[in-house]
Amino acid sequence: MSRVFSGIQPTGEPHIGNYFGAMQNYVKLGQEYGKRSLYCVVDLHALTNPAAFDPALLAQRTLDMAVANFAVGLDPAQVIFFVQSHVPEHQELSWVFTTITPVGDLERMTQYKDKSGQLESVPAGLLMYPVLMAADILLYRADTVPVGEDQTQHIELTREIARKFNHSFGETFPEPRAVYNKQALRIPGVDGQGKMSKSKGETSTIGLFEPMDSIWAKLRVAPTDPARVRRTDPGNPDVCLIFDYHKLFSDLDTIQMVDVECRRAGIGCVDCKKAVMTGITAHLTPIQARGEELRADLDSVRDALTQGAREARAIAAPVMEEVRTKVGFLKL
Amino acid sequence: MSRVFSGIQPTGEPHIGNYFGAMQNYVKLGQEYGKRSLYCVVDLHALTNPAAFDPALLAQRTLDMAVANFAVGLDPAQVIFFVQSHVPEHQELSWVFTTITPVGDLERMTQYKDKSGQLESVPAGLLMYPVLMAADILLYRADTVPVGEDQTQHIELTREIARKFNHSFGETFPEPRAVYNKQALRIPGVDGQGKMSKSKGETSTIGLFEPMDSIWAKLRVAPTDPARVRRTDPGNPDVCLIFDYHKLFSDLDTIQMVDVECRRAGIGCVDCKKAVMTGITAHLTPIQARGEELRADLDSVRDALTQGAREARAIAAPVMEEVRTKVGFLKL
Repeated sequence: MSRVFSGIQPTGEPHIGNYFGAMQNYVKLGQEYGKRSLYCVVDLHALTNPAAFDPALLAQRTLDMAVANFAVGLDPAQVIFFVQSHVPEHQELSWVFTTITPVGDLERMTQYKDKSGQLESVPAGLLMYPVLMAADILLYRADTVPVGEDQTQHIELTREIARKFNHSFGETFPEPRAVYNKQALRIPGVDGQGKMSKSKGETSTIGLFEPMDSIWAKLRVAPTDPARVRRTDPGNPDVCLIFDYHKLFSDLDTIQMVDVECRRAGIGCVDCKKAVMTGITAHLTPIQARGEELRADLDSVRDALTQGAREARAIAAPVMEEVRTKVGFLKL
Repeated sequence: MSRVFSGIQPTGEPHIGNYFGAMQNYVKLGQEYGKRSLYCVVDLHALTNPAAFDPALLAQRTLDMAVANFAVGLDPAQVIFFVQSHVPEHQELSWVFTTITPVGDLERMTQYKDKSGQLESVPAGLLMYPVLMAADILLYRADTVPVGEDQTQHIELTREIARKFNHSFGETFPEPRAVYNKQALRIPGVDGQGKMSKSKGETSTIGLFEPMDSIWAKLRVAPTDPARVRRTDPGNPDVCLIFDYHKLFSDLDTIQMVDVECRRAGIGCVDCKKAVMTGITAHLTPIQARGEELRADLDSVRDALTQGAREARAIAAPVMEEVRTKVGFLKL
């Protein structure tokens, strides 16, 4: 019987790239796996990113991430949704894994090399990141991990750590596999500068909770097919980010209409953008309304997180207890 | 108001080198500092030493270390004596420190370089050892740390981590200082091959709980001044390890007698060894008897460790809570 674990970075308000890239998938998996799916806001991991980490904002961002996921339809009563730092077994298991993971394996991680290369002083947390991630997953004996493709190497290391622990201390952990979100892996940024990403700033992103007039202001100036200079020039939807948005937000009729009319200059870019704005509005309005409701009743969000931590610990505690016994810690 | 923290490796039965090098000092500090002194069997650290770590023996060795320290006079009712893995705040704080400690600082540690140099595959736990050690100490806001001189660099790193945390998150931790045991820093091994050390095997050590006939068998063949070939040759106590033992175990009269008589061949090596054996017997017999008592009532030892963990957590929990708040973890 399978179990799913997903880590969610508390990066502040998510954008539609996060929504189609991951959050929508969580909702789907939650409906399928119920309490056998765990969603964890990884605030301990957030500390390893010196550029983004701000102690004054972390708690708020953690709460924001819960609100956002609940608003898009992840039901905390149906799944297990919790905050990493509320389950200390994550660090406990991480320490045990630290002692069986070779430094060399960690130094070879592509993400570590990329991130550490940009820093003058590299915090050890960045090097240990994949060890904590392995603990996150294996603490729940999760075998299914929805991730981005950039996490492939970390999941492989998790499998390696599971094998090594099992070999040294007896069969304990499954070897988890990554599942990739097929839909919409690369949502383009509204500024036309490649993939939508928070790190590129507000001009790149369409926030899930962004006011419609603010979204429209970005769409209005968004680049389209650069070969289409005049209204009467035919355009190519295949190179236009607005068409990518249509595929996410518009109904099939609209998508087909745009595909045909753009190519024969039957529709101008402004009208095309207005059409996609209609789809975005229809999509985001109920999510934003639900977000408002949750923000007006943060106590219920906190209660859900308390309950989630309790449910997570109910799984984690016996696993950690088994690890303690196998590793040889004295039991009183 | 000062607080003392000491880490005790669960290395199995201690020898007289451990006794004069550390344990006797713990007893003295315990009498002075009472409940403001913490003695922690560091089983989490034991996992970082692949050569010595054995999951089948760790729990027993942890218990043995408690028995040994209680037998020499450390009173668990008077001090706080506990096992590291029973206080999960150690790993929690360690993770936070991992994120503010540069990898480069850890790679520069002399002990890491020495130990990792002997290994084909270096576990990350060895690199992270001093971070966990800093957490051990600062979790109790200890400012006084009795250690061997080989730990000077780790204590300096602990001070650096305390400064860095205080600078980033506000004044929280003191900067601890190392205190070195002045007496008997280097007890010679009974095999004459330098410092007494478990790593050199049984021929080097005199166990604190070793039967007297076994100790005598080692003493009998122990090398003395190599220049003294015949009974009638005068000897030099300054180069004789038996004289070092006299200084630890014999009364002043005996020490003076040996110092004088050896130099003028007034006493032979066998008689000199018998004299020191008298002192060893007088010293170790009550310790061994107390050890027997404790081993016959392990429930009371376990109860003391349960109580110790409770007392340690009572200090650790509010400190960790303060860290959580300062770092920005969401509080429910």
